[in-house]
Amino acid sequence: MLILHSPVDMHVHLRQGPMLSLVAPYTARDFAAAVAMPNLTTPVTDAEQVLSYRESILAAVAGHVFEPLMTLFFRPFSRQELQAVKPHILGVKLYPSGMTTHSETGVAELDQAEPTLALMEELDIPLLVHGEACGFVMDREALFLPVAERWARNFPRLRIVLEHLTTRQAVTLLDRVDRMYATITLHHLLLTLDDVLGGLMQPHLFCKPIAKRPEDRDALQQAALAHPKVFFGSDTAPHPVEAKEAPGCAAGIFSAPVALPALADFFEQHKALDRLQGFVSDQACAAYGLRPPRKEVRLVRETWTVPRRIGTVVPYLAGKPLNWRVDACT
Amino acid sequence: MLILHSPVDMHVHLRQGPMLSLVAPYTARDFAAAVAMPNLTTPVTDAEQVLSYRESILAAVAGHVFEPLMTLFFRPFSRQELQAVKPHILGVKLYPSGMTTHSETGVAELDQAEPTLALMEELDIPLLVHGEACGFVMDREALFLPVAERWARNFPRLRIVLEHLTTRQAVTLLDRVDRMYATITLHHLLLTLDDVLGGLMQPHLFCKPIAKRPEDRDALQQAALAHPKVFFGSDTAPHPVEAKEAPGCAAGIFSAPVALPALADFFEQHKALDRLQGFVSDQACAAYGLRPPRKEVRLVRETWTVPRRIGTVVPYLAGKPLNWRVDACT
Repeated sequence: MLILHSPVDMHVHLRQGPMLSLVAPYTARDFAAAVAMPNLTTPVTDAEQVLSYRESILAAVAGHVFEPLMTLFFRPFSRQELQAVKPHILGVKLYPSGMTTHSETGVAELDQAEPTLALMEELDIPLLVHGEACGFVMDREALFLPVAERWARNFPRLRIVLEHLTTRQAVTLLDRVDRMYATITLHHLLLTLDDVLGGLMQPHLFCKPIAKRPEDRDALQQAALAHPKVFFGSDTAPHPVEAKEAPGCAAGIFSAPVALPALADFFEQHKALDRLQGFVSDQACAAYGLRPPRKEVRLVRETWTVPRRIGTVVPYLAGKPLNWRVDACT
Repeated sequence: MLILHSPVDMHVHLRQGPMLSLVAPYTARDFAAAVAMPNLTTPVTDAEQVLSYRESILAAVAGHVFEPLMTLFFRPFSRQELQAVKPHILGVKLYPSGMTTHSETGVAELDQAEPTLALMEELDIPLLVHGEACGFVMDREALFLPVAERWARNFPRLRIVLEHLTTRQAVTLLDRVDRMYATITLHHLLLTLDDVLGGLMQPHLFCKPIAKRPEDRDALQQAALAHPKVFFGSDTAPHPVEAKEAPGCAAGIFSAPVALPALADFFEQHKALDRLQGFVSDQACAAYGLRPPRKEVRLVRETWTVPRRIGTVVPYLAGKPLNWRVDACT
């Protein structure tokens, strides 16, 4: 048996409407809190939208001990705007334009973000960033790292969280830059581009940033198992099956229903089950100064098979056996 | 107007049964000859199968001036076997095991191919090779090149044709090794991995070897436009739409219906229309000592839109406009 204390998922896409109702309970069942990303069809860019989205999430997860941690979609903000929204958010999420689902209105010229970053530093609002810059798909994260490093130098008190790391180079940056942190997904611990298209092509393993090379995955695994500045963010990102199994397949993997069991499998395989609490909760709480609701999540070592479909969505690891199961949450 | 004399497609998958009947006429309409690959559901591994497959192809293309150039699926062969089949084939096609569609029975240990390669050298039977070795998907062609170079050194009189080049490194090998040649597809002249999954994921652009980096595509373009040891092989590889728009999407792009018009577009954009005859016919004929049937293919500069579907198959460039059209073949 394994007990996790107040696990938090630091990167989730809970969507809206019927999809929110379908997927949010999976996150709320297994986690005490989760960081809700703001890239809705209309991005969440002010306090009113933050509060309204928060209400929708709470309505979808009624009955669970669960706290949605809200984020604001980065745009140029005034000090007044940031002051008004600060009590309601964990941080501001920056998307370079066009890098993933609903990021069309993201930042086109990264330099132009700096005045707002200066205000965020002053007000102590963390920056969460989709760390990719324009370029060849396998290079985009590496191309963004000099930008991240420049921002860290220009705004030394700003906390920067690189979301969903995928490369070895990004891991090494964490060691060089003081107030820089990172999330790692479940699927980037397990996949390389070989899994996506090295054999037949697998739309349900297609995500952004794309899974990279074996040596990148190895570096991510080492970081997840041991790096104090790294914490779990699933980037669970459901799309209906019709949007995945079609030309123009949408990017995203719905991992919420399997996240904790699959992480327990992974940490156990690496003889590091004792590090899982740090990865799924303590390290994030330390970085953000978070105090999530108290919740004990008990996993038992018992094989089960991941369903092939959850509503309209094919979950990550569909049809695969997992060795741990979430037994009870109290 | 543009007239091509006896264009040949040096790499086609014509399939079997109803798919053969559907797709072969597109190749037979526009080309004087084409190299029919032997990776059928039961690979073509002896003279009897070669002749029977050739009959099936001829039946499917009745009425066209067209010569199928047959190949044998590589396995360990005796001298007697190779002597018996030699009059009926252009060459022997080697697939490393598991690298593409119906290659499961290919060569698992590349070193064990050498006794047969020695016989092929002695009998002057060209080797056509799917040049990928086991490894990370983006590296597989580069990993195969030392094998190709070793074979060229060990069998200096063996003609080796590297099929469907995808990397800059492979292009440079042609300059170092005397009797080594290569085919290049239409789609590898136009695509990089960015097109396949840099935005949304496009199953109809998924092929093996996978499209590579921009600098690789640039090197392929330069080679197609000017390199005397390079010639056209479309690797046209139809799959029914259900096999493409699904998990476990099959690898292959059906380019036969658009090959010559799209190549004319490409060569015209690069102000090299006068080099197209060499790429689609003369260079291959010189390398192989081929004498394809006489056939004049006339293209006119006239915009048309590629159909969105041809029978059960989505063709390459479906729905896109092309500036050249095949007008008449005599």
